[in-house]
Amino acid sequence: MSDTRERLLVTGERLFRTQGYSGTGLKQLAQEADAPWSSMYHFFPGGKQQLGAEVVRHAAERYAALIAKAFAAFSDPADAVAAMFKAEAKLLSESKFRNGCPIAAVTLDVASTVEELRESCAEAFDLWIETIARGLGATGLPSTDACTLASYVLSSLEGAILLCRAENSVVPIERTAVFVVQTVRTTLRMP
Amino acid sequence: MSDTRERLLVTGERLFRTQGYSGTGLKQLAQEADAPWSSMYHFFPGGKQQLGAEVVRHAAERYAALIAKAFAAFSDPADAVAAMFKAEAKLLSESKFRNGCPIAAVTLDVASTVEELRESCAEAFDLWIETIARGLGATGLPSTDACTLASYVLSSLEGAILLCRAENSVVPIERTAVFVVQTVRTTLRMP
Repeated sequence: MSDTRERLLVTGERLFRTQGYSGTGLKQLAQEADAPWSSMYHFFPGGKQQLGAEVVRHAAERYAALIAKAFAAFSDPADAVAAMFKAEAKLLSESKFRNGCPIAAVTLDVASTVEELRESCAEAFDLWIETIARGLGATGLPSTDACTLASYVLSSLEGAILLCRAENSVVPIERTAVFVVQTVRTTLRMP
Repeated sequence: MSDTRERLLVTGERLFRTQGYSGTGLKQLAQEADAPWSSMYHFFPGGKQQLGAEVVRHAAERYAALIAKAFAAFSDPADAVAAMFKAEAKLLSESKFRNGCPIAAVTLDVASTVEELRESCAEAFDLWIETIARGLGATGLPSTDACTLASYVLSSLEGAILLCRAENSVVPIERTAVFVVQTVRTTLRMP
């Protein structure tokens, strides 16, 4: 991938996390990515929507790899879920609560108005749910149950990140993690 | 409260839910509220931020009343939590997934850029957590535990709403509800 294109996608992700999709202008994005204005329409001839969809896909894949890595690092999937919540809490506090989820931000701005972007967000969440489900299923949980449990884990994590950003505090994610990890442990142990 | 002011707040809530805070212009808001443009600055001389903060407060109180009503209607607090998730799923599907949470939408757009609005969002979530905690504590759960559990319930609900809006489906909230209600039941029964 061209360096400039990569910089535009990474900067887009950072700005969407912090100030949402609607609040991010392409001029600001090009400037902060240190990219010439002409490169924006060179790489994204479809304009902001195309850039938005590609930022969503780029971020979705990057995060899916991190999720898979977390599950690979622990023999007990519940420990991997605990590690995911912990890593997210660290990311939030180290960024002074600026770094939320870019897919969440895009979803809330455009899910009801820009169908192309809503679909990209749905695909991103689906990819994460599949990746979590694969990790949860590694010790024998049937795949339908793993998928249901993964959907719950992701919902709880996303909501906790949202509350942390509003509260400027990691307390919501720490509280949520306790119950989610316990639920995952109990569900995995069921006969 | 004046009718026009009320209409501006209710329309603001509806637009924030659907298209976020940054994506909502004051002109569109006045027009859809059927309010003269001059009324906007008459009632909200501080402009969009003041209107945003008042929409957040207005929505926060309206929802807190609905939460309290849900807990009053059931003798088992876990049933009230189940009813909250069910009511939200109905709201989502009946609105064709347009009606998300207005506080979530404002949070993701401005938590890192407009401190006054971030504080309003934090107060809204705090009010909901307190209201849920009061309901959860009604059958004897100590108030610290009730508050921790309430924070988890709200996080999970908010994240599930977000996933439903991306997926145009109630599946994420239905899946999340099963685990959350079970966790609430188990926690309330602990000695």
